[in-house]
Amino acid sequence: MIVVMKVDSNEQEIASVVARIESVGLKAHLSRGVERTIVGVVGQVFPELRDMLELLPGVDEVIPVSKPYKLCSREFHPQDTTIKVGGFTIGAKEVVVMAGPCAIESEQQLLETATAVKAAGATILRGGAFKPSTSPYHFRGLGEPGLELLARVKTEVGLPVITEVMSPAEVELVARYADILQIGARNMQNFNLLVEVGKMGKPVMLKRGLSATVQEWLLAAEYILAQGNSQLMLCERGIRTFETYTRNTMDISVIPIVEKVSHLPIIADPSHGTGKWYLVTPLALAAVAAGADGIMVEVHPQPDSALKDGAQSLTFENFHLLMSRLKLVVEAVGRCLASPSVKVES
Amino acid sequence: MIVVMKVDSNEQEIASVVARIESVGLKAHLSRGVERTIVGVVGQVFPELRDMLELLPGVDEVIPVSKPYKLCSREFHPQDTTIKVGGFTIGAKEVVVMAGPCAIESEQQLLETATAVKAAGATILRGGAFKPSTSPYHFRGLGEPGLELLARVKTEVGLPVITEVMSPAEVELVARYADILQIGARNMQNFNLLVEVGKMGKPVMLKRGLSATVQEWLLAAEYILAQGNSQLMLCERGIRTFETYTRNTMDISVIPIVEKVSHLPIIADPSHGTGKWYLVTPLALAAVAAGADGIMVEVHPQPDSALKDGAQSLTFENFHLLMSRLKLVVEAVGRCLASPSVKVES
Amino acid sequence: MIVVMKVDSNEQEIASVVARIESVGLKAHLSRGVERTIVGVVGQVFPELRDMLELLPGVDEVIPVSKPYKLCSREFHPQDTTIKVGGFTIGAKEVVVMAGPCAIESEQQLLETATAVKAAGATILRGGAFKPSTSPYHFRGLGEPGLELLARVKTEVGLPVITEVMSPAEVELVARYADILQIGARNMQNFNLLVEVGKMGKPVMLKRGLSATVQEWLLAAEYILAQGNSQLMLCERGIRTFETYTRNTMDISVIPIVEKVSHLPIIADPSHGTGKWYLVTPLALAAVAAGADGIMVEVHPQPDSALKDGAQSLTFENFHLLMSRLKLVVEAVGRCLASPSVKVES
Amino acid sequence: MIVVMKVDSNEQEIASVVARIESVGLKAHLSRGVERTIVGVVGQVFPELRDMLELLPGVDEVIPVSKPYKLCSREFHPQDTTIKVGGFTIGAKEVVVMAGPCAIESEQQLLETATAVKAAGATILRGGAFKPSTSPYHFRGLGEPGLELLARVKTEVGLPVITEVMSPAEVELVARYADILQIGARNMQNFNLLVEVGKMGKPVMLKRGLSATVQEWLLAAEYILAQGNSQLMLCERGIRTFETYTRNTMDISVIPIVEKVSHLPIIADPSHGTGKWYLVTPLALAAVAAGADGIMVEVHPQPDSALKDGAQSLTFENFHLLMSRLKLVVEAVGRCLASPSVKVES
Repeated sequence: MIVVMKVDSNEQEIASVVARIESVGLKAHLSRGVERTIVGVVGQVFPELRDMLELLPGVDEVIPVSKPYKLCSREFHPQDTTIKVGGFTIGAKEVVVMAGPCAIESEQQLLETATAVKAAGATILRGGAFKPSTSPYHFRGLGEPGLELLARVKTEVGLPVITEVMSPAEVELVARYADILQIGARNMQNFNLLVEVGKMGKPVMLKRGLSATVQEWLLAAEYILAQGNSQLMLCERGIRTFETYTRNTMDISVIPIVEKVSHLPIIADPSHGTGKWYLVTPLALAAVAAGADGIMVEVHPQPDSALKDGAQSLTFENFHLLMSRLKLVVEAVGRCLASPSVKVES
Repeated sequence: MIVVMKVDSNEQEIASVVARIESVGLKAHLSRGVERTIVGVVGQVFPELRDMLELLPGVDEVIPVSKPYKLCSREFHPQDTTIKVGGFTIGAKEVVVMAGPCAIESEQQLLETATAVKAAGATILRGGAFKPSTSPYHFRGLGEPGLELLARVKTEVGLPVITEVMSPAEVELVARYADILQIGARNMQNFNLLVEVGKMGKPVMLKRGLSATVQEWLLAAEYILAQGNSQLMLCERGIRTFETYTRNTMDISVIPIVEKVSHLPIIADPSHGTGKWYLVTPLALAAVAAGADGIMVEVHPQPDSALKDGAQSLTFENFHLLMSRLKLVVEAVGRCLASPSVKVES
Repeated sequence: MIVVMKVDSNEQEIASVVARIESVGLKAHLSRGVERTIVGVVGQVFPELRDMLELLPGVDEVIPVSKPYKLCSREFHPQDTTIKVGGFTIGAKEVVVMAGPCAIESEQQLLETATAVKAAGATILRGGAFKPSTSPYHFRGLGEPGLELLARVKTEVGLPVITEVMSPAEVELVARYADILQIGARNMQNFNLLVEVGKMGKPVMLKRGLSATVQEWLLAAEYILAQGNSQLMLCERGIRTFETYTRNTMDISVIPIVEKVSHLPIIADPSHGTGKWYLVTPLALAAVAAGADGIMVEVHPQPDSALKDGAQSLTFENFHLLMSRLKLVVEAVGRCLASPSVKVES
Repeated sequence: MIVVMKVDSNEQEIASVVARIESVGLKAHLSRGVERTIVGVVGQVFPELRDMLELLPGVDEVIPVSKPYKLCSREFHPQDTTIKVGGFTIGAKEVVVMAGPCAIESEQQLLETATAVKAAGATILRGGAFKPSTSPYHFRGLGEPGLELLARVKTEVGLPVITEVMSPAEVELVARYADILQIGARNMQNFNLLVEVGKMGKPVMLKRGLSATVQEWLLAAEYILAQGNSQLMLCERGIRTFETYTRNTMDISVIPIVEKVSHLPIIADPSHGTGKWYLVTPLALAAVAAGADGIMVEVHPQPDSALKDGAQSLTFENFHLLMSRLKLVVEAVGRCLASPSVKVES
């Protein structure tokens, strides 16, 4: 932590800053510049210290220099995290494809979709039973019966499944059915929920909040890792900007950023990231070209009858097209598509 | 709902759109312009319809014309909502002042602060027992013991209290102690939590999410109202922008907007809205000048020793100054400060 | 400037950073923390140094500690800048009101409006002859004939005038007619234009760019001051956020921020800041409550026939109402409205 | 244009809206819904009409349904625009690579860089002689002598050149040297400049403003096309968001959006788009995977001694690596890299 003094701060003010730092057991290190004096804080700083020092007279600014996250940081954990699910590995050379309907609507819809996406090469089935909805008047998912459908289709088709959990009280229930627990964007800072999924021994995918900075996202990841669960992957799904053409602005740059500052795998969701089906394929290709470890895509037998997010869902035909184009780009960046698993634990 | 056809859409495409609308029991109303044809949807539209129509060939755009919220809309409920708490009324002529520490740290800290803010004219005591924290390594509140301190100080000092609830499972517990339940910005779209507080018969204050649009905020309010709880007020606490000088950008314009489109009272929180104590007073004055029904301000006996948010907390002296300046502006806009309540229900 | 080394940086990397700093004639000051080493740069740093150091191996981050602006900084120039225009002073106790049509349309429109706003207490007449327009098909102002109308009405009514200049080549022309030269938001970083207005001996009002940070705005101001023109005031007119209800989000917090970090007067423009006439009055009151030195408001004889920005223009009646409410808030914060000037230099 | 009436609007208000529409020679088309009445405006609407109607009593909202741009719209001009420069075509199957230093510093720096980027496969040389700078104290380019160096190196190395023009008065001068005129992000709405470059018969590249919506960008393009210059390409270079890790957030989604709504070629600039050299390659690959017609990249012999933007510049070695990886992705999406031109018109 660095304390930048004001240009006109006096000796007494500098002395007070030094005294305050020493009063909490740390060392102060003075550096007198041409214009300003700077006081470095040496020792194990604690977060409240920033506010404390910023309020002292003569202080212009306090700048933290340590990163507030450790467990998810590549500086402290240089090796890539890899996660084994259903016979393949996320975060290694293979690129995974999670596909399926936004919301589970019926056994037929889910079964048809699962069969189609597996045939096209998808490796994980997605499908929501608990769905967040901005309006209380919209469809919010089938709930537990949806999870049961998911379990049945999973065994029948032979694909591991990812599904969302929205409430701390439902974590145990959802974990009974899911191979990967998904935390949605709106719950990225639902801290009680993060703690609960951190306690389960299951892989987790944490979506980035709509207006979360990289640092906040990594701190949310830190909540999960701090509970002892290291099977964590991140997922970019678009951020909020001033642009109104798309539902969100997909932040492709965050993919190489996460790869640089963290060891966690990074997935891209171009369906939510754009909100428009005709943007899904170009953004999926872009994500993989930028280094994503996988993509998550919404697919529906009849998008124009979907109960949720039809406008961003691909038809079977378009998903098939996406997969054939994706394969070429995946190989162009020296990776390969994960093969659909033969055996799935049930 | 209005369907805008593409410039080069043909008769068959228009006919399909009309047929789709009629197939769900609604009427289509054609309007042929110089450049484009527009199809109006007449009847009780449902939200999924938008996606459905947008996916049809020849359609350029689908524009909703009804507001997605009803219960919180002034169009459907022209009279102001007023909420009685501790002997005065929120949302009427009186302007209320909620003040206290960000987090409850100890009985002494809370008691001292409550006594001081009441003496200066505050009408409601704030103080958090459950605190959201972006980092798992920061102080997250005293929990239930904090609520007990709040109850004790409330009776001793004679001020109604507002405190945050973060989890559906804790709503009942917190409601036993609080006069007003607060939903924090990060939980604005924690839909399960909204439903739970909607079921309690207690006044609720719903903070705006960091990147929530007015419409999303009102839809979150709609969740609470839809459960039958009409004692709801909103609170602006700053939104996320590109500016880094402040922690957030306080959106003062939302105060008259809420007043225009909704009947719910609106409170302003310049402490979180700015993140810097020296901006709290000017923004509090601005909020009231723009029509806010109240302000919420963080006060601490020694901000430079606070366990949370010291940098945005006022000292007793600065809070006293704020109150004297606030009184003048409140009167300049034809309102008055609510008087500290004599009796508090306990 | 502070160089933060990576956690795993080695002695050789630290030595290279020190050597690089010394190679450009500055001193390096090492501070070894528990986790990281920090290198302070002592001496007169230059802007390119940041990039240079950031590229060296082992460097995690380079943090500037000096502010990049000097002339507009309160640290280096503690006294308030005040500007005399038409018999009163901007930036002192008086609050000025600039009012008039967005665009000058005709002599009658301008004369009527000028007479009305003066009668209601406005102190400066605004009116655009050169108008930026996002579309090439919209009205872009009358040009020089508009300036001539402005000159005629100025003398007839007796109000100093402010008008926009959009191009370096037109600065001299506009300066012949204007008492205050206005730089619009879209031209805040039109650096050639800033240099040209900096060369004139006339007061200038620099609007904040739609997505400009405070620092970028002050650096744009620095361009003007660096040419020797110290008669400069700033104007907040709304920034771009994700919110779509308003045209822009008016940033009221920037008013006390500018007052803290700079000595330049600060004006607020709630007409552009909101884009909706019914938000103009509450935001004007808020701006003054937060410490603005003046407001700029669009007024039109018949907003629903205006050639530009009718939706954000006040009628004469609404402007009159605004002035009576403004007076009360201005006095509540211990200031007074500037009186309409008796004599105007022509 | 669609006028949405308020829920409680009465017959007289509806009649006034109709009368206003007819008074300007257009037709009104009523559509009475369950909740609201909607009035369609039929005929050639003009932009001021929106404000005019929005101000009438009983009106809730006015929604434009025509796009405000025509010349750059794919609806009105379905064929792709292609631009021939130096023996290859921009906007067709070939992907172009523009590379070179941010700012021209010396003949040696430019010549070395031009030679290196050509050897690695670049097809156009970039280099700035007039440089925008947020601070008046930073390097702002060599000016005309820089253009002369550019001309010399162009002939010597045999690459067409692109360079920025910042002021209407300098358009003619810069056009004498440049094969492509570049309009920078900060000048996207410098409307006088747009008009001037529109008058030249030279190819133009228009960068997106830092906070420009797609619509504003296309309207800026429309300014140039409206002057009769159809040799126009667009360039995405990052937008401003709340994220502070990168200088800007590169909006990859805008690439397929521009392809859908416009016929103009689209280039991506990952150097400015990210501000960090180690993000340039992944974002360049992503841009091309998403369909970009070319990329623009900053290259410098010694980035850590660059006078401008060193932190985002690639070394020769890293540029070479980028080109070899780019080639694979370009081919994976069914395109090819443009071959360095043999002959350059001088």
